[in-house]
Amino acid sequence: MENFTYDLIIARYGEIGIKSPKVRKKFENKLVQNIKSSLNADIYIEDGRIFIYPKNFKKALKSLKRIFGIVSFSPAIKTSAEFNEIKNKLVDYVRRLGINKKMSFAIRPRRVGNHEFTSQDLAEFAGDVVVKETGAKVDLDNPDIEIFIEVRHENSYIYHEIVEGPGGLPVGTQGKVIGLLSGGIDSPVALYLMMKRGCSVTALHFDIRPFTIDGNIKKVKKISEVLESYSSGEFELLILKYGDVLKKIKKIAGKSTCIVCRHLMYKIAEKIAKKKNAHAIVDGSSLGQVASQTLPNILTTHYGIEIPILSPLIGMDKTEIRKIAEKIGTYEISCESPDICKAVPKHPVTYSTPKKLTSILDRMDVDEILKKY
Amino acid sequence: MENFTYDLIIARYGEIGIKSPKVRKKFENKLVQNIKSSLNADIYIEDGRIFIYPKNFKKALKSLKRIFGIVSFSPAIKTSAEFNEIKNKLVDYVRRLGINKKMSFAIRPRRVGNHEFTSQDLAEFAGDVVVKETGAKVDLDNPDIEIFIEVRHENSYIYHEIVEGPGGLPVGTQGKVIGLLSGGIDSPVALYLMMKRGCSVTALHFDIRPFTIDGNIKKVKKISEVLESYSSGEFELLILKYGDVLKKIKKIAGKSTCIVCRHLMYKIAEKIAKKKNAHAIVDGSSLGQVASQTLPNILTTHYGIEIPILSPLIGMDKTEIRKIAEKIGTYEISCESPDICKAVPKHPVTYSTPKKLTSILDRMDVDEILKKY
Repeated sequence: MENFTYDLIIARYGEIGIKSPKVRKKFENKLVQNIKSSLNADIYIEDGRIFIYPKNFKKALKSLKRIFGIVSFSPAIKTSAEFNEIKNKLVDYVRRLGINKKMSFAIRPRRVGNHEFTSQDLAEFAGDVVVKETGAKVDLDNPDIEIFIEVRHENSYIYHEIVEGPGGLPVGTQGKVIGLLSGGIDSPVALYLMMKRGCSVTALHFDIRPFTIDGNIKKVKKISEVLESYSSGEFELLILKYGDVLKKIKKIAGKSTCIVCRHLMYKIAEKIAKKKNAHAIVDGSSLGQVASQTLPNILTTHYGIEIPILSPLIGMDKTEIRKIAEKIGTYEISCESPDICKAVPKHPVTYSTPKKLTSILDRMDVDEILKKY
Repeated sequence: MENFTYDLIIARYGEIGIKSPKVRKKFENKLVQNIKSSLNADIYIEDGRIFIYPKNFKKALKSLKRIFGIVSFSPAIKTSAEFNEIKNKLVDYVRRLGINKKMSFAIRPRRVGNHEFTSQDLAEFAGDVVVKETGAKVDLDNPDIEIFIEVRHENSYIYHEIVEGPGGLPVGTQGKVIGLLSGGIDSPVALYLMMKRGCSVTALHFDIRPFTIDGNIKKVKKISEVLESYSSGEFELLILKYGDVLKKIKKIAGKSTCIVCRHLMYKIAEKIAKKKNAHAIVDGSSLGQVASQTLPNILTTHYGIEIPILSPLIGMDKTEIRKIAEKIGTYEISCESPDICKAVPKHPVTYSTPKKLTSILDRMDVDEILKKY
């Protein structure tokens, strides 16, 4: 990698390809816009591929791993569709790759446009060039290295690496959600998954100090930076003071503190969703993970919230969630300090009801609380 | 495997272990009950392990792969904690395993209870036995085969295989959900994941004939059989006639047919949830997978539904969903015939609103429709 000078990066996108022409166009444009917001480059779309000419190659390769919608990409060199020029570039390419007579290789040809040769002709020609230059053996089934040569109209592209991208849909194509973000392991994963499905995110962090440690805010900001790095600029963090509200809740709700606390967070999120023109709330709930994440409690906390509450982790095991957190880079940050809430009662209720919730809310001035947000 | 006679199967469970003693006891009991409902066996729980003595060994090994809550299991032989008896059984075991002098092995000892020897003593003794019997070499880092010897109080267990279980929580520990089940790829995966998180499921299939092919019902029944095989008896399928309702919807709703159709399915599911004492609806929605699965459409179809609608696939890509479907055995069945709905308008709306939904519902007798379910 280090010894190479490439001309461009060819990126492939997946699901967008199966959309209707109109939706596809919209998605492609958003994807190009998102790439441009992450890296300085000239970008063209042609025949379902994105051709990226970055100013800073190393940075570009790193950035592309975090742009949703990209399924894979390949750093490549470019030349014309003339066999002679392909030969010159190819000789140079395999030399720099260090292919030698102890190795096996395969040419993987691809052709788009009208040419006087077939893909098979191209593969045979290129194969001969590589054999003569390096002494390596052709092995189409199980080669040590694959060399891809794509002839597209008057241009050719040579590459050997296919790097996996993050997949999903371009951030921003699916509108906005309000995400609840704590300092824990789960909620960052939930927001990541919804960004991966194309949502831009306004993350709300409820600052519950003095019921947690001061360091929590710093942790949340660090997590947000990671999430932002996947967002192509479509992520924002709002930190909302909630300690005084939680104090009131704890006093009145007792064993139901967590239920009322969660419900009011949804209420506030719903209000902010209206302001921000967001269509859903996203949270990191996973059924049965802790004693209080029961179906009756979920039903109760959702009660009366009029926009959807999406919980992409609801069907996942803790180990599955942790694996994603590790992959995206939030796990270690979440583990830097424990996720403490000192307002949690010793025996939180596991079976609450909307009736019970309403009776507690009746003893609080909810409108007054909501006014502050 | 085939040449072996085992005495029992030792099964391990995961997440249950971290619950409070009370919750843990409840979960363990449910897990034992679920195992008993799937196979004929004597079952004991001790020190966080389940000891299963099945009547039919082969069937038991197959069944355990489908019982949620089990993390892994090992067919084992049993003897006393006397070194001499361990020796006799171990000699027999390694002979039947076909261990020979070209192979390497490691003894993995474990000891629970009070004994006059340490785990290390046990490993050294057993290692000598195997070396003398087979001529195989000890290799603790990278052995060809591992032999586990667990001494628990007055008993010993010898095994060499650790088979992966499905993980999750015992079905039924998290209460009931109403699942929407079509003949497609997604909804069976959604219901599977919620069963894996401990939910028992009442699946609703809306029979939309004449808007789909006759074969669809048969397909749904086959899918249900697969899902039921994971459910420890906590799964039921209800097939509801919906063709006439859809006819009415199509006439009145036009481009919004899918929105109104979905919303009424939720309405019916909510009614059935009350009857069945279920606390949530589960569906296979995945954001942006088709043009109509947009956030505004999700918001609109959820409008006025008072119990949570859980969509465990909401943050997944199609390829991820397909992988799970293949693993659990529903993918091939779903693909037997295409998932057709002839009522889908040519250009379904992608941006609906509760206001628009309400104005359409006002022109229908929704109460009359709901009465039938």
